[in-house]
Amino acid sequence: MYFATFRYNEEEKFGVLSKDQKNIIPLQQIFDQLGVIAPKTLKDFIEQSDDILIKDIKKILKTHNFECIPLENVKLCAPIPYPRRNLICLGKNYLDHAKEIIGLPGANDEIPKFPIYFTKIADPAIGDGDIIKNHAEITDKIDYEVELAIIIGKDGINIKKEEVEEYIFGYTIVNDVSARNIQRKHEQWFRGKSLETFCPMGPFIVHKSEIPFPVELDIQCRINGELRQNSNTKNLIFDIPYIISDLSKGTYLRAGDIILTGTPSGVGLGFKPFKFLKSGDVIECYIEKIGTLTNKVE
Amino acid sequence: MYFATFRYNEEEKFGVLSKDQKNIIPLQQIFDQLGVIAPKTLKDFIEQSDDILIKDIKKILKTHNFECIPLENVKLCAPIPYPRRNLICLGKNYLDHAKEIIGLPGANDEIPKFPIYFTKIADPAIGDGDIIKNHAEITDKIDYEVELAIIIGKDGINIKKEEVEEYIFGYTIVNDVSARNIQRKHEQWFRGKSLETFCPMGPFIVHKSEIPFPVELDIQCRINGELRQNSNTKNLIFDIPYIISDLSKGTYLRAGDIILTGTPSGVGLGFKPFKFLKSGDVIECYIEKIGTLTNKVE
Repeated sequence: MYFATFRYNEEEKFGVLSKDQKNIIPLQQIFDQLGVIAPKTLKDFIEQSDDILIKDIKKILKTHNFECIPLENVKLCAPIPYPRRNLICLGKNYLDHAKEIIGLPGANDEIPKFPIYFTKIADPAIGDGDIIKNHAEITDKIDYEVELAIIIGKDGINIKKEEVEEYIFGYTIVNDVSARNIQRKHEQWFRGKSLETFCPMGPFIVHKSEIPFPVELDIQCRINGELRQNSNTKNLIFDIPYIISDLSKGTYLRAGDIILTGTPSGVGLGFKPFKFLKSGDVIECYIEKIGTLTNKVE
Repeated sequence: MYFATFRYNEEEKFGVLSKDQKNIIPLQQIFDQLGVIAPKTLKDFIEQSDDILIKDIKKILKTHNFECIPLENVKLCAPIPYPRRNLICLGKNYLDHAKEIIGLPGANDEIPKFPIYFTKIADPAIGDGDIIKNHAEITDKIDYEVELAIIIGKDGINIKKEEVEEYIFGYTIVNDVSARNIQRKHEQWFRGKSLETFCPMGPFIVHKSEIPFPVELDIQCRINGELRQNSNTKNLIFDIPYIISDLSKGTYLRAGDIILTGTPSGVGLGFKPFKFLKSGDVIECYIEKIGTLTNKVE
């Protein structure tokens, strides 16, 4: 199932895609049919759902006809515009990306022996088709980073590697937009990653049942049609079981948490000369089985 | 006014201290008197309140008698146990602390030219008297850091230095408990700062009207009675107007956000040999006009 948050008739709703991916079925109707009180947002749904509810929804979608809205008639939002806390991000988690930034001022030239975790504000995360502000007064070094994002499905602490999949709800795409001058200026990376509109997310959250585990998906980023990033999530230095198990040592992960797994080589900072984003640039972040997240720079 | 979140008769409530600081007045009664719908939590109150409501509450407290609960009969909680997003922290923001860690492995030996921002999870923040877990399986290098925390009172972006006080609701104390081995291992500091129970907060949020601006308050930390940290918030390298103005460039600060301003010298990492916390240690974090936040290590 593909979950989306969308605006239709000036209301924010959430729903699932029809099998042909041309229509969206608002979940409200399904909850009514199931006799379940509808959560207000997709985030609330993820916090409250479990495998049984997901199965029930799948079953009822097959046996009943629900009202559909053509996808072209809705405005897609970020699936979780306001996460319950900051997104957790990994730095330098593809070998080719760790290598492409060696030697740059401010970079630690080592391949990480342990995951590098930092956080990012989404306030709100923006959706497919939304505009990334250029913040021209404070930066001219805006960069793109396509990333596979994990959506946590239930609370857990000290999660064992072999149990990690149980704690996942699904996956989406996040473009970890970064102002490189600000990221460097403040030493720790949080600040340069957290400007307004710097968190494009979507277009959908794909339920884990659609994607075989371990997760091996092609991941690409195009700028104005030019292929810049091109890899596969099997190339992560620290894989998903490692990350979730490691992050949850002594710290609760919570349903609805969003974890970004890092970006492959080909970011603007990796080119000589640099290829930072310019006004009007169109960024297409693609991950196999999830879709394409497209945003334009103001 | 001193605001507190507390547990009484198995219910979580919030209120203000009486003038003699011996009693707590649940705010519910005051909202009833004012004919205002009561917010559910102190966090919600801070999001919804403005200067007029604060003045009304002050006035009504003088003219009416409300039911009080003796402070000794309640369990104080963190004033905001679940912030709406991660706490924003400053690293190395007192000169003497920046100097005491020069030369340590993994430290950048420079005095910061710009603020170093990172974030910390509170899940939940713990209150006065609560136990800090020792996480013995993953660390034996737990350290204390007394810090003045700013509570943001209204949303703002690109806030001018001279308007900063308007955006502040008040102040509290946070002990930025840190696992030094984990902080270093992951390069960025977020992970080692975010273990369960590593965010003691309180005992109260003091409204800004009680504290002259600029904020110059004695700040101290005692371990088992021994004075370890002893400074004044006037010694911040980057002061409160600078921090809030700088953080809000291109990023919204939100009512209820919590910003930690950094810690003075005397942390365990600053001694030779190191003086990390041990099981049973009692940590007293004191800030003038706010109070003392006391926690014990498991």
